[in-house]
Amino acid sequence: MIKIFVIGTGNLGGHLCRRFEAGGDLAFAKAGNQKTPVEIQLTGYYNKSGASVPGVSAPRAETLEELPPTDLILIAVPDDKIRDLSEQIPMTDAVVAHTSGNTSLDALSKHKNRGVFYLPQSFSKSRVPDFSKIPICLEWNTATTGDILESLASTMGSQIHHLPSEKRQHLHLAAVFMNNFVNHCYHKSQQILENGAIDPAILDALMEETFAKARSLSPATSQTGPALRNDIKTMNSHLELLPATDRELYRVLSNSIQNEFKK
Amino acid sequence: MIKIFVIGTGNLGGHLCRRFEAGGDLAFAKAGNQKTPVEIQLTGYYNKSGASVPGVSAPRAETLEELPPTDLILIAVPDDKIRDLSEQIPMTDAVVAHTSGNTSLDALSKHKNRGVFYLPQSFSKSRVPDFSKIPICLEWNTATTGDILESLASTMGSQIHHLPSEKRQHLHLAAVFMNNFVNHCYHKSQQILENGAIDPAILDALMEETFAKARSLSPATSQTGPALRNDIKTMNSHLELLPATDRELYRVLSNSIQNEFKK
Repeated sequence: MIKIFVIGTGNLGGHLCRRFEAGGDLAFAKAGNQKTPVEIQLTGYYNKSGASVPGVSAPRAETLEELPPTDLILIAVPDDKIRDLSEQIPMTDAVVAHTSGNTSLDALSKHKNRGVFYLPQSFSKSRVPDFSKIPICLEWNTATTGDILESLASTMGSQIHHLPSEKRQHLHLAAVFMNNFVNHCYHKSQQILENGAIDPAILDALMEETFAKARSLSPATSQTGPALRNDIKTMNSHLELLPATDRELYRVLSNSIQNEFKK
Repeated sequence: MIKIFVIGTGNLGGHLCRRFEAGGDLAFAKAGNQKTPVEIQLTGYYNKSGASVPGVSAPRAETLEELPPTDLILIAVPDDKIRDLSEQIPMTDAVVAHTSGNTSLDALSKHKNRGVFYLPQSFSKSRVPDFSKIPICLEWNTATTGDILESLASTMGSQIHHLPSEKRQHLHLAAVFMNNFVNHCYHKSQQILENGAIDPAILDALMEETFAKARSLSPATSQTGPALRNDIKTMNSHLELLPATDRELYRVLSNSIQNEFKK
């Protein structure tokens, strides 16, 4: 049985609370060569807002001073609040872990058993994540911590990766390109269609093919377009069509494509 | 029966030749309120390289001076070659159409019946496109031209859109963001993982969710990440991890996200 307490109930924390409450019956973990069931239990959660988490029956704690008995305290708050919050937790033998891609294990240095439980995914309140498809990247400082984090991750059905802080930071940076920047290009594309009074659905097939082709051929092999073929006339006509505020974006992306394929 | 001759057999032209040869039996088009079968036939093709097109039995023409009898001459060459090539075609009553997103109908002004047959998709030799899923954007100057282009598009099972040159240019620009720029962000992400000696498959789930979430919630609603929440510390640590040549790209994309959501 792993008893878990969650601090922070934003986009990620809220989904984790619901997943942990739902999770007992799915729980299996490796012990030696055997799979043995591992039960998990959400003992409670804490947030600054005082709001209760929809769909969760475990109680909200009023303070971090007196936590219920727990094996793991999982901190899912913005990066710049992690150290502060971890220091508000009274000294404990429980594992204290954060969920940040870009924060070192040292941010939890007050505590004996510390770890990282990072899910490289983009979470939103309105989309229920399928945790079994999301890899979990772990880091820890003691064997006890490693056992608890690995057992918990395996109960979620996820691929498990062991990544030290430095590699995790690279992964987090790569995730920004894969998610935030890709999504922003989607957004700009849609905005151009709207400004031109063109049905946005007209590019649905291209959006899908862009994903499928990069997945099947690799992005480097998939590249096409005016920047790649150094079609300056087309690029200039595109710059004229764009609002002035978007021209630098177009120029820098096109230059970056050209630099890549000159190599 | 629509007889088609194709000029240019690159990524798009080659796939079109094969599609037209395969297409007779699938062909249906609206005539009045009735669907009547429309047969299509590839009468031949021309390219500068002299190479024959794999999988195509129609003959390669040695010259544009003497073309086989044809209803439609479809030009699928780079944008800056379209006018020149169209002027090498002897005066004809056949429809002369190009396939470019960013070239005006006027580039074909030598010919009486001129049109545009633009498919907003990214084509590669090694991926067989499913034309029934790709919208076709048409423009024409005479009723005869419109009839032939609409019939041909409908035999391919595609959504048909009527777009004048100016709207088509906007669409083409939006397609660059949707495909070339999205794909480049995929590429950069993968490169960061490779440089960090991290298994690239670790972000497959994020790649998929980025697509699915933008499709289901809209890209504007889907955005998350350090730029959106103005997390300057994380952005600075990312800039330090990046090679100097990629920092401007990161900065300009992050600024663009911030400008968007300040509005």
